[in-house]
Amino acid sequence: MDQPKILITGGTGFAGSHLVEALVVQGYKNIHVTSFSGDSSFMEKLIGIENIHQLDLTKREDTESLIKQLQPTQIYHLASFAYVGKSFEKAEELLSNNISLQLNLLKAVKEFSPKTRLLVIGSAEEYGVSLSDDEIPCDEDHKFRPINPYAVSKITQDMLAYVYFISFNLDIVTVRPFNHIGERQSSDFAIPAFINQVVAIERGEQEKLMVGNLDAIRDFTDVKDMVKAYIIVMNNGKKGEVYNIGSGVGVRMSEIVQKLVLLSTKHIVIEVDKSRFRPQDIPKMVVNNDKIKSLGWSPKIFLDDSLLRIIEFARSSGRTTEGKINNS
Amino acid sequence: MDQPKILITGGTGFAGSHLVEALVVQGYKNIHVTSFSGDSSFMEKLIGIENIHQLDLTKREDTESLIKQLQPTQIYHLASFAYVGKSFEKAEELLSNNISLQLNLLKAVKEFSPKTRLLVIGSAEEYGVSLSDDEIPCDEDHKFRPINPYAVSKITQDMLAYVYFISFNLDIVTVRPFNHIGERQSSDFAIPAFINQVVAIERGEQEKLMVGNLDAIRDFTDVKDMVKAYIIVMNNGKKGEVYNIGSGVGVRMSEIVQKLVLLSTKHIVIEVDKSRFRPQDIPKMVVNNDKIKSLGWSPKIFLDDSLLRIIEFARSSGRTTEGKINNS
Repeated sequence: MDQPKILITGGTGFAGSHLVEALVVQGYKNIHVTSFSGDSSFMEKLIGIENIHQLDLTKREDTESLIKQLQPTQIYHLASFAYVGKSFEKAEELLSNNISLQLNLLKAVKEFSPKTRLLVIGSAEEYGVSLSDDEIPCDEDHKFRPINPYAVSKITQDMLAYVYFISFNLDIVTVRPFNHIGERQSSDFAIPAFINQVVAIERGEQEKLMVGNLDAIRDFTDVKDMVKAYIIVMNNGKKGEVYNIGSGVGVRMSEIVQKLVLLSTKHIVIEVDKSRFRPQDIPKMVVNNDKIKSLGWSPKIFLDDSLLRIIEFARSSGRTTEGKINNS
Repeated sequence: MDQPKILITGGTGFAGSHLVEALVVQGYKNIHVTSFSGDSSFMEKLIGIENIHQLDLTKREDTESLIKQLQPTQIYHLASFAYVGKSFEKAEELLSNNISLQLNLLKAVKEFSPKTRLLVIGSAEEYGVSLSDDEIPCDEDHKFRPINPYAVSKITQDMLAYVYFISFNLDIVTVRPFNHIGERQSSDFAIPAFINQVVAIERGEQEKLMVGNLDAIRDFTDVKDMVKAYIIVMNNGKKGEVYNIGSGVGVRMSEIVQKLVLLSTKHIVIEVDKSRFRPQDIPKMVVNNDKIKSLGWSPKIFLDDSLLRIIEFARSSGRTTEGKINNS
């Protein structure tokens, strides 16, 4: 196997850690990650401590010197700030950080490693609301109608990558993942938040399952399927193109809660907490995944199996993860 | 006439000053402007010194207190940084400033004046390159394929406005102007730069007309027609909608130069200066203006008349304007 030198930014985060696992299983040997914060002991066992680079990508000079020194063949650029649910309060900080890390990486690649293949991670949130049923399922041509500053920060990152592709011919390809779930996801997201509560109820530490708006329909993919799509797009995606990634199946949040209630060992009482509602929700997000399927990817893991695996992980470790702000 | 209280951000800039003139001519009396820098003596004669607010919109508290105190009926939000031609070098500063002033204004309106009608100024640059002839002329559904950080900053401003419309129901309407020209435009733009050179040659201060890429096709509208479109969209545009504004006629930059040569009193020698080329140019930008025309607007001033007026202004004042970074 021809061994590319791979760099994964945000590699110790949620999707990053699953991506490293998948790459190792597939036989990739030369894997480096950047880590902004948090525990990297898990990662040390996978790739060795010498390949973990403690780095804040919003620091221009640090980013430059890493890219200059490493000259990676491929970069999976997963690092991004989310502040889910607080994106209005922290809008300026969020935009500033996400733009800064994006510009620093793009400039460093252009300057010091212009042949690097770069996978940029957008988000389904960029598309936001659909105005008619014709727009669902959502393909790559869906207009941007973002509902929060986080989504705007992802649009900005995505568009900056396009600028560096079109103006400097950098070898950039972009994915826009829809919702994905798995162990080690921040409890700022709905499903890990629900699962942590279910486990707390099982342990007698909490009484009721507090929920927000359960009417929304979302498209869930197991993170292990998601990162396989990233690898396929990295290796076979067309330069300058965008690929949506998701299962193509819409599930109402109330169904997810119902599944968790069935998986629980205790009787679960659900209480709607209005303070968990956001100013605006996207009613329905379901992907048109024809384009990524044309590269040979399809999701393999059933939603029920994902939920069971995550709940068992949470039972054994106390929770799905510590709260992290870095990496979605 | 029912007199709205009007605030124009960036009101002493290029489009801003023409907008104030047009509003005054149409009988509007209660007009305030914010001015970031530069000479406002011209504006004092139009609206009085007491209605000129020296303000840096990137300062949150100053922006808040102005909106709180003024509670305008209508805001024409023209203030924006451009750094034309330097948008790669100054990308981070440009994005940071344009996002900061946009967020500050949106938050202040939401908090202190939520019934204000707000006109947001995007840009044709948001659309960027077209991939096929089917996409030209460019309507409001054209995808965003920006070629420089300035364009990304306008996309970000535009999308933030959408977020505040969709999430908080603010009364926002957006225009995306194509190229517009007139007296008092910064010589960072091509046409005033050409005209200033022609006048310098007429005065014997310069030998040759230095030009960049002349192959690009652009859609030019007289600024006096452009600001009339802003007034129409402010008063009759549909909340949450976007309106492209432009003449609908594509003209090659070489034709513009040819027209200026014909208008000059001296023989003009043209020299192509490769250093004036940008990393990437949009080959053709021509607007589909059906939507703004449906509101009753159409351009009235012929391109030749605009060029003649601007060159005469430059002859009488020495140049079209001092270089300004604020307001396009």
